[in-house]
Amino acid sequence: MDFDALFSEQLDALKAEGNYRYFAELERQCGKFPRAANHHADGVRDVTVWCSNDYLGMGQHPKVIAAMCEAVERCGTGAGGTRNISGTNHDHLLLERELADLHGKEAALLFTSGYVSNWAALSTLGSRLKDCIILSDAGNHASMIEGIRHSRAHKVIWKHNDVADLEEKLAACPANAPKIVAFESVYSMDGDVAPIREIVEVAEKYGAMTYLDEVHAVGLYGPRGGGISERDGIADRITLIEGTLGKAFGVVGGYITGSHALCDFIRSFASGFIFTTALPPAVAAAARASIRHLKESDSERLRHQQQVARLRAALDRAGIPHMRNPSHIVPVMIKDPVKTRMLANYLMDEWGIYVQPINYPTVPKGTERLRFTPSPLHSDEDIERLVAALSHLWKQCAVAHAVA
Amino acid sequence: MDFDALFSEQLDALKAEGNYRYFAELERQCGKFPRAANHHADGVRDVTVWCSNDYLGMGQHPKVIAAMCEAVERCGTGAGGTRNISGTNHDHLLLERELADLHGKEAALLFTSGYVSNWAALSTLGSRLKDCIILSDAGNHASMIEGIRHSRAHKVIWKHNDVADLEEKLAACPANAPKIVAFESVYSMDGDVAPIREIVEVAEKYGAMTYLDEVHAVGLYGPRGGGISERDGIADRITLIEGTLGKAFGVVGGYITGSHALCDFIRSFASGFIFTTALPPAVAAAARASIRHLKESDSERLRHQQQVARLRAALDRAGIPHMRNPSHIVPVMIKDPVKTRMLANYLMDEWGIYVQPINYPTVPKGTERLRFTPSPLHSDEDIERLVAALSHLWKQCAVAHAVA
Ligand SMILES: Cc1ncc(COP(=O)(O)O)c(C=O)c1O
Ligand SMILES: Cc1ncc(COP(=O)(O)O)c(C=O)c1O
Repeated sequence: MDFDALFSEQLDALKAEGNYRYFAELERQCGKFPRAANHHADGVRDVTVWCSNDYLGMGQHPKVIAAMCEAVERCGTGAGGTRNISGTNHDHLLLERELADLHGKEAALLFTSGYVSNWAALSTLGSRLKDCIILSDAGNHASMIEGIRHSRAHKVIWKHNDVADLEEKLAACPANAPKIVAFESVYSMDGDVAPIREIVEVAEKYGAMTYLDEVHAVGLYGPRGGGISERDGIADRITLIEGTLGKAFGVVGGYITGSHALCDFIRSFASGFIFTTALPPAVAAAARASIRHLKESDSERLRHQQQVARLRAALDRAGIPHMRNPSHIVPVMIKDPVKTRMLANYLMDEWGIYVQPINYPTVPKGTERLRFTPSPLHSDEDIERLVAALSHLWKQCAVAHAVA
Repeated sequence: MDFDALFSEQLDALKAEGNYRYFAELERQCGKFPRAANHHADGVRDVTVWCSNDYLGMGQHPKVIAAMCEAVERCGTGAGGTRNISGTNHDHLLLERELADLHGKEAALLFTSGYVSNWAALSTLGSRLKDCIILSDAGNHASMIEGIRHSRAHKVIWKHNDVADLEEKLAACPANAPKIVAFESVYSMDGDVAPIREIVEVAEKYGAMTYLDEVHAVGLYGPRGGGISERDGIADRITLIEGTLGKAFGVVGGYITGSHALCDFIRSFASGFIFTTALPPAVAAAARASIRHLKESDSERLRHQQQVARLRAALDRAGIPHMRNPSHIVPVMIKDPVKTRMLANYLMDEWGIYVQPINYPTVPKGTERLRFTPSPLHSDEDIERLVAALSHLWKQCAVAHAVA
């Protein structure tokens, strides 16, 4: 059987619909964020990165870098085993304590990524709680969807951020079945924010447990970076808070926090936790340094919000339509995969501005976009230059302007 | 609903059957491997680690440490995005080229772990190849099992390492269905090795693609560390070779290698590849340094095999039964979870020897064991001391001796 032909056939279909992905090859340069080197066909050029999820530039913070190097030199480069078989390091436990404290929970559990934490936790809960029903927000991330799918639990999808719909669906569930309401705080592609308090109240009313993904909020919101649930003073009423170490904290890895029993349960039964090499102690040490810094320092968050507001205002002045939302994510809708790629290529080639075209399956077909993520390290000039480039482009390409 | 009570109930059941897991808290110390600090209830003590999967101690190799620190200082601590959205770094591509070369393949694709590489690749192949049948060795690792389960492809289990059974099952499949034969080279818990050539020949006869997990062999076997498939000169006939960067290479991460079309297919469709933050460039740089070193240097592999042979001979002299196998893994069967834990506790408390008791679900119930993994850095004295401790224990506990 010619397997390569089967693969190529499906790849050709992707290409035909404009959804084939070309990765930009970068070389991040410490101390220069958001500048990076871009390796391309004809050589290397300097670009300004406008789509990083290292939202605060913590991946280049001197404390975080120092913590990582110190731990590499102290412990070496790897954990040397799964958590059970020689892989649990002192640095993992320090980080887990830090994370539990960040969310005001009894315990935390580390995973190799946020993806794996969602997938492993939801697939374990859904498969081991008898007759469990998972009520999943329609906008949930792939990692949650796959975890729920893997669990083979009964799944009920409620309308995105729609508490009335959630309540209707909760009311329709058998009263004595274990129920999990799974949702996110900041949705990564539209940047909208869940009505967490209302969701928690409805869930409590029906005795459901709440599962909150704060991946795009930890480090960024709340007085100590505990996310939207900290900002809204509702964290203590959420059963499980999940997060990542790979975005605002600038390293890699994922985690859940909750009660001792909950974390011990996932620790003891989740295949995706048990059967995999633990994160390097140095990754744990770096993440911990980042979290500790952001627990005490608010200046990154303040400046972040300032630059987000500045970009939005500049886009408004230039008449460039962008999605209104209360977060740090600034999507400019193009609604066509080929056009989105053309615009991104032009920005990269002509202006040295790197923003990845966002297409299916990351967003639904027909909602392709450019997604800008200003950081505290983007200067006012960076913002002006971006908006100048977009204005130029908007004129050139005759893309519809927003009506003023 | 009292979720904590539901969790505790299942945890109590684990405890009652002796399968609850206690993680040993270590602090790896650069340059001292296999020695590490063990944090326990009463303080910190020095132990000798006998169950690490940092098989060659590469996690503390000066070149690997230097590469990781250099890259942290050059690029920062994280990739800053998914591979598609600003997360592809020059170091990732260099590593992918290195891995493709290691296995003599056209291309390679990095994942956050070996677990995710198996899960993502198999679930994508199984779900996107129409009518696909996956023929899975009965001894396959959890990550492969979960990937196959997730794909919802038709699954056929063949008897462990039994080529005749595989052939029977292949012959029974519809001739024109895409078929994948999935297996490992070195099985991690029994240390036995698959008859790769025979498996490949049968698979070829029936037009099946071959999927080989070399997680416990890469770095360790073959003139350049390309695994058992390199040693046996059969790599070019295997469709997909999967491996880890977290064991013999001493860092963290996973990968697949194969044709351009195959890797591009997984890159383009695998949820577990697409929707997750890329590995830190520094992890990629460290792994690459480790692979490059082991491509050129055979001394670690030679000394590794020597110390494995030395341990086996010493166990034989002491009459301590251990599983015969042709690999570097030395299992001593105890066949009871409580006894295994007791023995391990005794070794740790009385002798400062750390070997994790291996229980369900890592091995089937009733096959609990101590699993020793000698490294090139275990001295002859370390081996003598371990065997002295075990002899003492065997006498004390009256565990059945092997008949000479
Ligand atoms: C909402 C959400 N949850 C989870 C993840 C996965 O986190 P990680 O990148 O740490 O795997 C992502 C993105 O990557 C995400 O957007
Ligand atoms: C056979 C096998 N495959 C895959 C894995 C997963 O690799 P990783 O530890 O890199 O996730 C393991 C163990 O962890 C394994 O034993």
